[in-house]
Amino acid sequence: MTVSSFTAKVASRALPSKTKGERALQKGQQTKQLIVNAALGLAEQIGLEGLSIGALAEVTRMSKSGVFAHFGSREELQISVVREYYQLFSDEVFFPAMNAPRGLPRLRALFANWMKRVAVEIQSGCIFISGAVEFDDRPGPVRDALASSVQTWLNAVHRAVLQARDEGHLLPGADAYQMVFEIHGLILALHYEARFLKNPGAIERANTGFENILRCYGRPSSQPSAIGSKA
Amino acid sequence: MTVSSFTAKVASRALPSKTKGERALQKGQQTKQLIVNAALGLAEQIGLEGLSIGALAEVTRMSKSGVFAHFGSREELQISVVREYYQLFSDEVFFPAMNAPRGLPRLRALFANWMKRVAVEIQSGCIFISGAVEFDDRPGPVRDALASSVQTWLNAVHRAVLQARDEGHLLPGADAYQMVFEIHGLILALHYEARFLKNPGAIERANTGFENILRCYGRPSSQPSAIGSKA
Repeated sequence: MTVSSFTAKVASRALPSKTKGERALQKGQQTKQLIVNAALGLAEQIGLEGLSIGALAEVTRMSKSGVFAHFGSREELQISVVREYYQLFSDEVFFPAMNAPRGLPRLRALFANWMKRVAVEIQSGCIFISGAVEFDDRPGPVRDALASSVQTWLNAVHRAVLQARDEGHLLPGADAYQMVFEIHGLILALHYEARFLKNPGAIERANTGFENILRCYGRPSSQPSAIGSKA
Repeated sequence: MTVSSFTAKVASRALPSKTKGERALQKGQQTKQLIVNAALGLAEQIGLEGLSIGALAEVTRMSKSGVFAHFGSREELQISVVREYYQLFSDEVFFPAMNAPRGLPRLRALFANWMKRVAVEIQSGCIFISGAVEFDDRPGPVRDALASSVQTWLNAVHRAVLQARDEGHLLPGADAYQMVFEIHGLILALHYEARFLKNPGAIERANTGFENILRCYGRPSSQPSAIGSKA
């Protein structure tokens, strides 16, 4: 069964009461979604710059013109992948953390979910990190989409830090931008040292680093005692 | 004047007493060095993977066969670039710091020199960072050369941390691997946020982060009082 016939089957099964026009539209949207999913998987492995209509046609077993019909250009495809990843990231990392109480519990949940995501990406790669290297000196809409996705996420972490400070869980003088910068550094070091250097213990170090940051900016009563003593 | 005639001129001027054979050898070495320098400049901009004999021939205004005569393969060229960068990094960052007294002064000097290097690379790019993304899932000698260069450098920072602990400048229980991980994170966050996101203030945040780490692992008497209070 081809990818498109599979899509058509799913579409027709899911909504049998639609009109012919509605079904065609839905089929188109689902096929597009299927292509974007495949493109995201490919981009995580070979980078956004490695994406091409041809490679995607091969992966999805569609014709090049079939893939091209859904994305007017390679750039549009890349932007769709960035948006898809951002959606996935939000669903896995951001939204579940919103169930935690405002303040330190929510900040902890955001970091814990972020860590879970990065742990998966030690194997697969992460387009927020590889994309930053690919597009750091290439202005244009792909770079803009990527940078604004990352910045939106960092702003969410910043907001959580401010709330934790407002709730009195952090020192009144805690610099929220500074904290977010340091937390971001832990995530980047984890990805670098675990994925590239293959150093063991990077996940534990990122977690310990987070506790050290909370201790640095936290009220004395909320501070744990140890900072590690391995070597 | 072509690049190679310039090289020949420099070579003949510098050592007029050499024999013909020695001069030819020296000329060859200097031409190779010139190509490696050009390759490093190119790799910082477009990545190690972007390097090709053809692109280098264009930049150095040599023939492809002329460039190829010095590097048997593209891989050998990439490895030469990694070694050249490592040498440059050592000369700028590592060796000058060895003049500082053992312990905290030397650790501070290593970090300060590292920061100077990264500040330059906010404009140019850094092959220790872009190379990690390019080669994180490509086993082989280029990846090995890159990873072992980075690891050698991180080991040097680790040694400086151990010495600072031995000198009593850090808490006896300070985890040196943990500290190096956190410091590495600051450098990666600086590069990411300044180069890709173009966020202002990243250099100051990396410096503040380093002081926070020293405060976290330092003896109480050596701790400054503020942790920042901007937002």
